[in-house]
Amino acid sequence: MAKARAFQEIPSSMAAQMAADGALAVWPAGALEQHGPHLPLGTDALVLDAIIAGCREELGEGFNGLFLPTLCYGKSPEHLNFAGTVSLRAETLLSAANDVVRSLVRHGFKRFVFFNGHGGNAALLQSYAFDLRAEYDVQVYNLDLWGGGFFREIIAEVFPALTMKEVHAASVETALMQYLYPHLVGKVPPRGELKGSDGLRHGWLAEDFSPTGVIGDPSLANAEVGERIYRDAVARACGLLRALAVSE
Amino acid sequence: MAKARAFQEIPSSMAAQMAADGALAVWPAGALEQHGPHLPLGTDALVLDAIIAGCREELGEGFNGLFLPTLCYGKSPEHLNFAGTVSLRAETLLSAANDVVRSLVRHGFKRFVFFNGHGGNAALLQSYAFDLRAEYDVQVYNLDLWGGGFFREIIAEVFPALTMKEVHAASVETALMQYLYPHLVGKVPPRGELKGSDGLRHGWLAEDFSPTGVIGDPSLANAEVGERIYRDAVARACGLLRALAVSE
Amino acid sequence: MAKARAFQEIPSSMAAQMAADGALAVWPAGALEQHGPHLPLGTDALVLDAIIAGCREELGEGFNGLFLPTLCYGKSPEHLNFAGTVSLRAETLLSAANDVVRSLVRHGFKRFVFFNGHGGNAALLQSYAFDLRAEYDVQVYNLDLWGGGFFREIIAEVFPALTMKEVHAASVETALMQYLYPHLVGKVPPRGELKGSDGLRHGWLAEDFSPTGVIGDPSLANAEVGERIYRDAVARACGLLRALAVSE
Amino acid sequence: MAKARAFQEIPSSMAAQMAADGALAVWPAGALEQHGPHLPLGTDALVLDAIIAGCREELGEGFNGLFLPTLCYGKSPEHLNFAGTVSLRAETLLSAANDVVRSLVRHGFKRFVFFNGHGGNAALLQSYAFDLRAEYDVQVYNLDLWGGGFFREIIAEVFPALTMKEVHAASVETALMQYLYPHLVGKVPPRGELKGSDGLRHGWLAEDFSPTGVIGDPSLANAEVGERIYRDAVARACGLLRALAVSE
Amino acid sequence: MAKARAFQEIPSSMAAQMAADGALAVWPAGALEQHGPHLPLGTDALVLDAIIAGCREELGEGFNGLFLPTLCYGKSPEHLNFAGTVSLRAETLLSAANDVVRSLVRHGFKRFVFFNGHGGNAALLQSYAFDLRAEYDVQVYNLDLWGGGFFREIIAEVFPALTMKEVHAASVETALMQYLYPHLVGKVPPRGELKGSDGLRHGWLAEDFSPTGVIGDPSLANAEVGERIYRDAVARACGLLRALAVSE
Amino acid sequence: MAKARAFQEIPSSMAAQMAADGALAVWPAGALEQHGPHLPLGTDALVLDAIIAGCREELGEGFNGLFLPTLCYGKSPEHLNFAGTVSLRAETLLSAANDVVRSLVRHGFKRFVFFNGHGGNAALLQSYAFDLRAEYDVQVYNLDLWGGGFFREIIAEVFPALTMKEVHAASVETALMQYLYPHLVGKVPPRGELKGSDGLRHGWLAEDFSPTGVIGDPSLANAEVGERIYRDAVARACGLLRALAVSE
Repeated sequence: MAKARAFQEIPSSMAAQMAADGALAVWPAGALEQHGPHLPLGTDALVLDAIIAGCREELGEGFNGLFLPTLCYGKSPEHLNFAGTVSLRAETLLSAANDVVRSLVRHGFKRFVFFNGHGGNAALLQSYAFDLRAEYDVQVYNLDLWGGGFFREIIAEVFPALTMKEVHAASVETALMQYLYPHLVGKVPPRGELKGSDGLRHGWLAEDFSPTGVIGDPSLANAEVGERIYRDAVARACGLLRALAVSE
Repeated sequence: MAKARAFQEIPSSMAAQMAADGALAVWPAGALEQHGPHLPLGTDALVLDAIIAGCREELGEGFNGLFLPTLCYGKSPEHLNFAGTVSLRAETLLSAANDVVRSLVRHGFKRFVFFNGHGGNAALLQSYAFDLRAEYDVQVYNLDLWGGGFFREIIAEVFPALTMKEVHAASVETALMQYLYPHLVGKVPPRGELKGSDGLRHGWLAEDFSPTGVIGDPSLANAEVGERIYRDAVARACGLLRALAVSE
Repeated sequence: MAKARAFQEIPSSMAAQMAADGALAVWPAGALEQHGPHLPLGTDALVLDAIIAGCREELGEGFNGLFLPTLCYGKSPEHLNFAGTVSLRAETLLSAANDVVRSLVRHGFKRFVFFNGHGGNAALLQSYAFDLRAEYDVQVYNLDLWGGGFFREIIAEVFPALTMKEVHAASVETALMQYLYPHLVGKVPPRGELKGSDGLRHGWLAEDFSPTGVIGDPSLANAEVGERIYRDAVARACGLLRALAVSE
Repeated sequence: MAKARAFQEIPSSMAAQMAADGALAVWPAGALEQHGPHLPLGTDALVLDAIIAGCREELGEGFNGLFLPTLCYGKSPEHLNFAGTVSLRAETLLSAANDVVRSLVRHGFKRFVFFNGHGGNAALLQSYAFDLRAEYDVQVYNLDLWGGGFFREIIAEVFPALTMKEVHAASVETALMQYLYPHLVGKVPPRGELKGSDGLRHGWLAEDFSPTGVIGDPSLANAEVGERIYRDAVARACGLLRALAVSE
Repeated sequence: MAKARAFQEIPSSMAAQMAADGALAVWPAGALEQHGPHLPLGTDALVLDAIIAGCREELGEGFNGLFLPTLCYGKSPEHLNFAGTVSLRAETLLSAANDVVRSLVRHGFKRFVFFNGHGGNAALLQSYAFDLRAEYDVQVYNLDLWGGGFFREIIAEVFPALTMKEVHAASVETALMQYLYPHLVGKVPPRGELKGSDGLRHGWLAEDFSPTGVIGDPSLANAEVGERIYRDAVARACGLLRALAVSE
Repeated sequence: MAKARAFQEIPSSMAAQMAADGALAVWPAGALEQHGPHLPLGTDALVLDAIIAGCREELGEGFNGLFLPTLCYGKSPEHLNFAGTVSLRAETLLSAANDVVRSLVRHGFKRFVFFNGHGGNAALLQSYAFDLRAEYDVQVYNLDLWGGGFFREIIAEVFPALTMKEVHAASVETALMQYLYPHLVGKVPPRGELKGSDGLRHGWLAEDFSPTGVIGDPSLANAEVGERIYRDAVARACGLLRALAVSE
């Protein structure tokens, strides 16, 4: 069966047809930021793209939705002191989100999913969904890999012994990369003695917690577990996207 | 005992002294937005100001922190179709937050709390705390009344029979207003048959859920319960603020 | 008799009704900035709020107007070198003014008063009133405490011996604070030997004139005079607001 | 004797020398906006340029100051409903002023005069002078033709019978244009019955006062009077500029 | 031999090392816009990515440069009336370019190539290279596929009979896509009778020239020619990049 | 015969009439930037204004177009290290262009020419013409003196021996200034040994090429040649403008 469609791969005429059919427009947002000594800078977008590829296979051509190309840059001020991190300012990311929606509204798209693979984008895009709803009268849903408990169940299943929070470049991300892009994964560092936080959310820098940039314990990861996490993520995302695609 | 200090009430020389002493600068952010047929537009800021007044009493003059005046406007696009709602654009709220921090950094303030009383501000201010940390090398903590489970325990205690989510103008807000500002509270509407949401976060409008603007069930509220919630909120906020004030 | 209404204290439904009745929306703008060694940082907003409280009493419930909550921050670059001053950039203040008007225009409000208690906001808000008129087709009036001679007559009456210009933290402000908030007023400093200006308006810093931040002579102030000034201010503001409320 | 210098007419090396000598940088700002049925759209900039030409003659080469080219566009929302008016948004004009100052600060210029020939620019540029002072540590003076009583004395002298306020396209502007650019002046319209204002400053549109766009009584104007006004303006401006050039 | 490196695929530590070695940072910019009835919306980014993949193979690991992930969105107002086109506003694209450079300057990167695959981005990015040079003291080079005659020689060679200008979705793009992504290419439309332009550059819309969105004659394209164009493009781009990588 | 009209010189009523007649609105953009040791900072705007004056004579009153006043400032980051250069940020210049078009669109103008006399503005204004077309549905043409080969033919004719590229303050500009403004031209410097560029467009600074700020060889210039260039420029610009004025 053919895959669910992507804007990049279809001609304008098919986009017009799908807008008329009330298709979901799915906008993936990643990041380019340090992921510890063992994972590449592009981890967030690479993982997201792999999950989307899996979803497109599973959802198939009949899916009433369309995937936009992934924005491979995100808001990452917390990692800017590590080389290679590129951070969009909050205002730039809001402008880009606005441009995506405003452009497609002209063509009749009315329902959007911001499919976000970077924790640092989540709150901003969740907040802005309200502004876009009010400005353009469109539905904007937030599907966040790192938020809303997306990985909660599978973590409980595959890492029953996990004792640290999975914040950044820890076991879930490491395992996913080991499965999906093993040639890009280096030697997994030991868990560090992380300095404590304060009970309240606050604006941290990665180096507050760890000199390596890893926040959590990556040592439980391996490729087999990565595959399980990956399959769970694809299934879960498909479930959410299918529900939206028929919910109107 | 004298109250914890407020910027509005002290001369510049004392602000200089407190900056030198490493004082916390607490910035309260409210909103002006519809709160159903029974609560006033200013509910968020009024409740926040009452909690801050309680905190200032309880923390006392020895508290190494200072309260900024409340921003009585917030980001409320979800309520803009109800008269009297004033919504700052996301960019305006970010600019204001930036101006507050940038101004006080000049004087040596290094630690900030964004004490937020409006759910619609929370994600944006949480996200921007990271940008401010990276731009000005300051600590920005987010103390959100509507987020992070601030009211979770007291709700379980005072509303054991609660069956709907407390989203907007429901029992907690109603009870707090009945206790704090009874003359501003009208007849409490019955719980409505709320239309369902979609499982994912999304950018909603208040009218998606309820024609009255109430999202939840306000019918459990009364002033005595309001007092219990209020005392719990003051105690909880004081606990968090005290921990920060000594945590450096 | 009940007071003139405030947005913060009424439900959305009453705001809708008053918009339909052509009510004035009054937006008060203050500041948080140094006011010499004897007055608190919040002087501008504190005085403004007291005058508005007096106006609300005097105008009564029959007044066809509504008071918005005070913006307690203003544009104060001239005081930024004194600790505790928070200055909004010009662009931020314009954005906030735009957001207030744009929000309320949706609900049918057509007539606004920018009731400004900080000299540093006056020119900017006066100028922007034209832009708002043209953009939204609304009337925006500027009622400035520090501009347009608001205090001119009462100064001539209560300070006949005044020989210096009342620019900042001088006798009018000191007297008002001594009457309204005596517990927040410190020892009044002597008049300083102020350095001269240049005949033209220019962008000054407070320290150009005085190391204490006082620009003028506060030594004539006392609480009784403060009361006379206050009563005059309330009466004068009520006169202007009443004239607008019936002038359509 | 050679004229006072203009940036447009000197090479970069001379600008460097004058910056080192502490020269004033004078930035003229005009407008392009309707001026009634009888005056051209460029009246503000044309009059300003003529006054500057006169000043450059009178001040001579020894003047320690330099004239920038005139910005022929200003903020004119109040005239936008008359054809040919071009209005810069407030934010655009602030950005341009910022760019001028920021550029020249790099070269050592420290003292600026905003020489403004359009009433609609005055408040904005006066206000922004403070921001520029604080941001770049430069002096910015405001020399406004339409503000600060620049024409007050000469009006009293040449138009003793004047009974209406000189707001726009009235006798002073008409007379100046009749003297300076007689070929651009059409038949002077009679004074109109102007609709009243409200006692407070507010954001008006020209058509509020007059269908012709004239606000005031242009009928007293003639070229001889225009010459007297012009000579007075040149002398007055030279006096102010000379005082600044030596005041450091 | 291993490929030239990509930011997405290396850990932060290697980015730090390459910054220290003076590596080029190559930022690819594409677009999402209509490409006639036969080519997909993502043509610009798809072609660019394929050329970059070829360059990475040919340049090899020894290349002192690093490829950033492709921005798959560009400035495309001229195609906004065709469904599926997403256009970033000029200001958004400038902000993104600024963010990329500003982020990497922190880590020591000093030399950038904006490798642009969309004609509509070219002038803007060329212009902004000057601003970035002046703001951050970095070198920014513009390598534009559609500008500077990149395809001129190969067009002369492979399409000697070409009689129309290659503007959009014509023979070069069609042939490249037929070779690189044949499954995404539909039936090639005949050349249209294009409406004439005006001799001067101007801001056109695609529909000014052609109802199909094709501007030029795609009918000469085939996959073999596409391969020749592709190989030429990779070789040419490698030549330019190698020259830059050693030119310091 | 009377000259072609200028906005500055006509009353609003005539602008209304010409908008109704479909007149072209011509917006000239110059710069204030170093032009070597021998030419004044205002060279770009001075030359442009002289060409426009010539065009207005030649086109005559019957020309269905109107000249706006020249913006004497442009985007010149590449010259900012030379004293007296004033550079508008890219965003400021875009905002100004937007304001000009948006203002005149209200009055019915539909066709614009950006007549640009500064190379550093060209790409930005060419690019933005597309955005303005899409936003306001107006035609924006770019007539650039330094781009599109405007001077190519005359250079071949008058400087057959020219061996260096005419980039900045070289023979064409020098000759034009010698003819048009001889009193503002200093001793022409010898051609310098210019440092090479890199084959690709890039963001340069003037000092990359030459310590004097001259980029090219000004030594071929003289006033007679300047007159020939000037007459050619006027004729060529008139040809282009006339073609546009009748092309609708």
